[in-house]
Amino acid sequence: MTEFPSTLENLIDKFAALPGIGRKSAQRLAFHVLSQSEDEVRSFADAIVSAKSSVHCCSVCQNLTEDDVCPICRSDLRDRSIICVVSEPRDVLSFERGKEYNGLYHVLHGVLSPMSHIGPEDIRIKELLVRAAEDEVEEVIMATNPDTEGEATALYISRLLKPFNIKVSRLAYGIPVGSNLEFADNATLNRAIEGRTEM
Amino acid sequence: MTEFPSTLENLIDKFAALPGIGRKSAQRLAFHVLSQSEDEVRSFADAIVSAKSSVHCCSVCQNLTEDDVCPICRSDLRDRSIICVVSEPRDVLSFERGKEYNGLYHVLHGVLSPMSHIGPEDIRIKELLVRAAEDEVEEVIMATNPDTEGEATALYISRLLKPFNIKVSRLAYGIPVGSNLEFADNATLNRAIEGRTEM
Repeated sequence: MTEFPSTLENLIDKFAALPGIGRKSAQRLAFHVLSQSEDEVRSFADAIVSAKSSVHCCSVCQNLTEDDVCPICRSDLRDRSIICVVSEPRDVLSFERGKEYNGLYHVLHGVLSPMSHIGPEDIRIKELLVRAAEDEVEEVIMATNPDTEGEATALYISRLLKPFNIKVSRLAYGIPVGSNLEFADNATLNRAIEGRTEM
Repeated sequence: MTEFPSTLENLIDKFAALPGIGRKSAQRLAFHVLSQSEDEVRSFADAIVSAKSSVHCCSVCQNLTEDDVCPICRSDLRDRSIICVVSEPRDVLSFERGKEYNGLYHVLHGVLSPMSHIGPEDIRIKELLVRAAEDEVEEVIMATNPDTEGEATALYISRLLKPFNIKVSRLAYGIPVGSNLEFADNATLNRAIEGRTEM
């Protein structure tokens, strides 16, 4: 016997297949499961199955939701003339926490990345163009991350939006509020000077 | 909306409750689950439930098994006169991989630890005493870890075994095979000198 019982080995394999979980961590997680009560274990398993079965993408903005159309897209209180394009569902939460933005969103579920073979067909660009064509959209804010792939994705999409005669903007770059100039990198400092505003 | 859909939040909570998994990792794991197929997700959930329901402790040695008595305790090929006492099921695997030891095991499922309020009643000491009284045991090897708690546990159990007139031994301390003296700590070096053998 140089292995744990097969059902336990199987569970360790499943945990080890999760991103960022190595063999040792997987073992620890499996032992943790064994140490829990039957009820706790069943509710963990149920949580996995029901998240998968009830969460899907909003048919409009592609954000994660349990409904056909998500609460933000359904809301009467949101400004429907403006769409903020983000790469991931968690980015929507970040903006919502800020309580400043009151428009709609569009979640791409990724960014263009030739290195990882992610092309325009692999992220939700087509769905954005459909909205640009149909809805009362006046402005699209590109809010992908300020890294190479995020920039390239923003540029690519902004070109596709040209024919729709919609204003396309990009989030401002600059010094983060509350940070220290000493720790700002050169690229950020240069962008902050370029984008300076009159006081 | 400053939260993900409730079933997704629930799944994130479950992952975050696992040992060593923070909030951000829990989110990543939950998104990974959403990105898998229905079948994969169901087989993950099944693995959790079936490991919990079919794995339990061997009624003799307390090692994890799917049977009432584990394959090692059942085997006719093992030396039943000797029991190796380890703290965790994974330690059994380590010895079995070594292919040298051919006796039986006893898994304590922990070590005595006053700091963590783990006393003699919380680990499988009673079951070991029952075996010492009933079985044809001639020697017990204490193979808990060579740290403070492992040492204290070995000492405590060896005293309990005194009345049974059984030989109690401890794993040898010394320089690990294939290692370099340069990297050996003082305690290990001192133990290696104390336990030196004639060539």
